[in-house]
Amino acid sequence: MREVAIVGVGMTKFGTSKKTQVEMFAEAAMDAINESNLKLKDIQAVYVGNADGNVEEGQSVIASMCAADIGLQGLPVIRFEGACASSTIAIIDAFVWVASGLYDIVLAGGTERQRIMSTSLATRVMGFGVHSRYETPTGLSFPGIFAMMAHLYAKKYEIPLPQLKETMARVSFKAHKHGCINPKAQFFGKEVTMQMIYDSPMIASPLQVYDCCPISDGAAAVVVASADIAKKLTKKPILIVGVGQGSSGSVCSQKDITRISARELSAKRAYNMAGLAPEDIDVCELHDCFTIAEIVATEGLGFFDPGQGYKAVLRGDTDIGGEIPINPSGGIKSKGHPVGATGAAQVYEIVKQLRGECESRQVEGAKIGMTDTMGGSFASIAHLILKRGW
Amino acid sequence: MREVAIVGVGMTKFGTSKKTQVEMFAEAAMDAINESNLKLKDIQAVYVGNADGNVEEGQSVIASMCAADIGLQGLPVIRFEGACASSTIAIIDAFVWVASGLYDIVLAGGTERQRIMSTSLATRVMGFGVHSRYETPTGLSFPGIFAMMAHLYAKKYEIPLPQLKETMARVSFKAHKHGCINPKAQFFGKEVTMQMIYDSPMIASPLQVYDCCPISDGAAAVVVASADIAKKLTKKPILIVGVGQGSSGSVCSQKDITRISARELSAKRAYNMAGLAPEDIDVCELHDCFTIAEIVATEGLGFFDPGQGYKAVLRGDTDIGGEIPINPSGGIKSKGHPVGATGAAQVYEIVKQLRGECESRQVEGAKIGMTDTMGGSFASIAHLILKRGW
Repeated sequence: MREVAIVGVGMTKFGTSKKTQVEMFAEAAMDAINESNLKLKDIQAVYVGNADGNVEEGQSVIASMCAADIGLQGLPVIRFEGACASSTIAIIDAFVWVASGLYDIVLAGGTERQRIMSTSLATRVMGFGVHSRYETPTGLSFPGIFAMMAHLYAKKYEIPLPQLKETMARVSFKAHKHGCINPKAQFFGKEVTMQMIYDSPMIASPLQVYDCCPISDGAAAVVVASADIAKKLTKKPILIVGVGQGSSGSVCSQKDITRISARELSAKRAYNMAGLAPEDIDVCELHDCFTIAEIVATEGLGFFDPGQGYKAVLRGDTDIGGEIPINPSGGIKSKGHPVGATGAAQVYEIVKQLRGECESRQVEGAKIGMTDTMGGSFASIAHLILKRGW
Repeated sequence: MREVAIVGVGMTKFGTSKKTQVEMFAEAAMDAINESNLKLKDIQAVYVGNADGNVEEGQSVIASMCAADIGLQGLPVIRFEGACASSTIAIIDAFVWVASGLYDIVLAGGTERQRIMSTSLATRVMGFGVHSRYETPTGLSFPGIFAMMAHLYAKKYEIPLPQLKETMARVSFKAHKHGCINPKAQFFGKEVTMQMIYDSPMIASPLQVYDCCPISDGAAAVVVASADIAKKLTKKPILIVGVGQGSSGSVCSQKDITRISARELSAKRAYNMAGLAPEDIDVCELHDCFTIAEIVATEGLGFFDPGQGYKAVLRGDTDIGGEIPINPSGGIKSKGHPVGATGAAQVYEIVKQLRGECESRQVEGAKIGMTDTMGGSFASIAHLILKRGW
């Protein structure tokens, strides 16, 4: 096992795209490759995260099409699917292939085009992430599951619902404040006030529109290389120092969805590999598909004790400048959530943060960052811990 | 990089199943685990190949559901998709994680349930394997592509079409002869005569029904372990000595579909890793989705020179007892083709062959075997070379 680094990152603007998934991937990939100061021929494999491109565009074996589209026909390719965690898994796998010494340089990322679907089809496709035999027939969709999470969280920690709703609104407000100044975000340039959040339509009580992430198109990619090569290519290599994965199976088999065991297992694996603890993390991009999901994730990652995450939001601990800035990119809530691309876009943000390239949303002095991506309803969770390599 | 072995294999009978994909995977996985003489808790990750389970059963993140279904909730899981090559890629990835030292024991396999689809939906879903922007709109389906391959092969090597058709019929006859005596095969117990083959309906000229593989349900799984552990678990470990992958992108970008460059690249990578050559292979399970595909594959793998593969069939070189026995399991043609499970089922057969457990379809003295799996129309191709470890 040798040290592995990220030498280049790229992503499309998230939102609505007229490009195909393959074309979006190409855009992100070419940006990542150009940033890496290497030639196409140096790349030895192409790993692509994609959740449901077969339904969305009638395209399977998408990794092959992605490789060919940028002139890398012939290379080993793999498509990874772990629902919303697909491209995090692709990057983790690239890490292992390079760490093992089998490859020196791998292109990894993800792509998804969901806005071509009708709302009803999108709802159905998102629903593929729960257990098809035991859960799909109940009609429970993601907003319903996370609404249950909010109610259970409020009940467990004896938080009056209006107070939890205010906390969730603040999570949304923060996400939009950051996304508003992130040119890659779906809601870039769109100012969102607390009043707009409170006034938005109810989706699944207590979750309103501004508690829910949007449907998005987009792609993101990174170039992963051995640390030795990375140091020749860039002055700012970002080391992958920890990776972790965990799984849950069905929602109905969970003991307590306010504490997601798959996340706790996965994060522990990543911390152990890195030899780091939650307090070592300077900045984190985590899976805020719903506002309550962010609060629960900050606890699952060990930044706050169980039941304390909502207080941290109210204190401003998760703002830029706070104790542990969460989702400076705007997160899934405001940056957008093209599911197959989400994990790679989180890595994009952390790499930019660690390099100090985030301008007005920069977390000053960030040296160690973490990504947290959750596929399905907790079914597949993956983590990366990244560290400045210079 | 350390040595890696397969310590247990399992597969369902291929054909029509009333079980879900997750349940079929569980059946195959438990057989593989039981054969491995280890406990469930020894398994560190679950890797699942699956092509289109979201369309077939509304199930994404299937690897998570598969792990939970056999009591392995919590473990790192990955779903791999490379169309028909999905589970070969899952096994290759398991190999890398174990070779790297990150894991000691990984369960890998694949599952697919296609017979619940209507013929029209199945045709559409299979069609996801070509380029969705440039090829799908032409209406070209797999039988059409392989029919073109047959015509181009006949023209290139100046073979009268009736002679090529006789050769293809012999490939089909051989497949059914083997499948007839393989209890796991979809066409087990079904005797097929040359006359039945000649009399079968035309699908896409010159391909008749018996030139085409069936639509199938099934699952297969293997347990991959470090060689050191393998030697403690079993007296007959099967070493993974070479792996390879290659990609093609779209069909329309191929120079010559009678010589598939992705296969030649991938096989070369596997041979190089193993330090072996085509003449070292004693038995091979290869991707005979259509009879012409088998002929072309035997050339692409280097068993015969380009244009010589059809002669080898007529000479009986690819029969059991011949120079290089091909598809003693009955192959995709007769064993069946639940796409996500196909690669793992090929590995199942080769492991059984190398262990000498194939009874009336045994290739005597086989010490080195190879699998060849082709996803989409050549889009993603993967190879494994296996060797007796004792």
